[in-house]
Amino acid sequence: SRGEMAKLTQLIDDEVFRAYATYAGIVLLKMMLMSLITAYFRITRKAFANPEDTASFGKGESAKKYMRTDPDVERVRRGHLNDLENIVPFVGIGLLYALSGPELSTALLHFRIFTVARILHTFAYLIPLPQPGRGLSWAVGYSVTFSMAYKVLKTAWLL
Amino acid sequence: SRGEMAKLTQLIDDEVFRAYATYAGIVLLKMMLMSLITAYFRITRKAFANPEDTASFGKGESAKKYMRTDPDVERVRRGHLNDLENIVPFVGIGLLYALSGPELSTALLHFRIFTVARILHTFAYLIPLPQPGRGLSWAVGYSVTFSMAYKVLKTAWLL
Amino acid sequence: SRGEMAKLTQLIDDEVFRAYATYAGIVLLKMMLMSLITAYFRITRKAFANPEDTASFGKGESAKKYMRTDPDVERVRRGHLNDLENIVPFVGIGLLYALSGPELSTALLHFRIFTVARILHTFAYLIPLPQPGRGLSWAVGYSVTFSMAYKVLKTAWLL
Repeated sequence: SRGEMAKLTQLIDDEVFRAYATYAGIVLLKMMLMSLITAYFRITRKAFANPEDTASFGKGESAKKYMRTDPDVERVRRGHLNDLENIVPFVGIGLLYALSGPELSTALLHFRIFTVARILHTFAYLIPLPQPGRGLSWAVGYSVTFSMAYKVLKTAWLL
Repeated sequence: SRGEMAKLTQLIDDEVFRAYATYAGIVLLKMMLMSLITAYFRITRKAFANPEDTASFGKGESAKKYMRTDPDVERVRRGHLNDLENIVPFVGIGLLYALSGPELSTALLHFRIFTVARILHTFAYLIPLPQPGRGLSWAVGYSVTFSMAYKVLKTAWLL
Repeated sequence: SRGEMAKLTQLIDDEVFRAYATYAGIVLLKMMLMSLITAYFRITRKAFANPEDTASFGKGESAKKYMRTDPDVERVRRGHLNDLENIVPFVGIGLLYALSGPELSTALLHFRIFTVARILHTFAYLIPLPQPGRGLSWAVGYSVTFSMAYKVLKTAWLL
């Protein structure tokens, strides 16, 4: 019935799920921010990947010289790809983890540590900080996702 | 009980969730299509990234010359990566948005605009269209995801 | 009520959903493993992308020579990107598929074939095996995701 169906969409009322939605939203927005930073560096460094992006700088050779790679642009792009490689597994495994019945306090601990670690990772990458700053922040986020995956597989295991 | 559990999997009966499933399915299939287009250009342009992929063209130097980058292949690959950077956040945030209790009409508006924008983005990238065609279609999709994230965080916020 | 809400998070008790959580967890962990393999090859081949990563090898020119690409590192990175392009759609479409009410046996068949295909794909990429080993394992995983998407769109369709 309609009444029963309505309830099913109130998953968002569950506190663990609300916490998941909040932190997943934050880290996905942080990942999306990398696109804007890439655009900022491409425009200020005048370093583009597509001929049509340089058309406003003139025609022919005068525009062609802006078809190049730039160390700052490439650095942001590596940070963005690293986010895809790490935030996407967090969002996928985190959803299953939130549905696997963890304590709210344990779940919050996982979500908070991951989110802080990935924000630090971005600063470590873009400033850049000397190693092992970036390596450690990466490892912390990785470990949190691994810990959530362990809980998911222990709870759900059905091969 | 079994009866109650069965209901939980009927999320798919909720209209907002059905709309989400439809549009998420469409944009994920569109993203997957990029793999086929990449393969098409790699084969027709004879431009490969792995030595084992060129073995059918002969041995040694005659095959080695096909280990190269090609502008058309690289263009499709950039489009594919841009899809990963934008469609993946849409799918993740869109799921949370669909569970946050939006009006069906508002949800449909978000899903439809995003889907049309990303299909236009692919055409703008592959034809290619002059700027700001690609830039605008990217910005529209980005804004829709941002709008959904705002609704999710406003509804779920629990830090 | 609280009692009703608690039930909503017991999605994990549904057998199809448990199977999905298990296989999605496994393939996401497999994808995450690629980061460790990349790090292993970067360290053993001494091939890095960031100047700060080579600081422990000394200063100036002596460290600069480790800022380079290496065929083994690039191969793992291509495998990792291919995982993102294929495992992410599986995780997204697979979730919707698990909620679309498939038979447990049919769902298990999809999840198992995809998971085996992607593990074989990684071996085919890293060893590397001669073609069409990698191509076939890619096509099998792709077809499974396509088949799930068809079921999702058939069940949920609401444009």
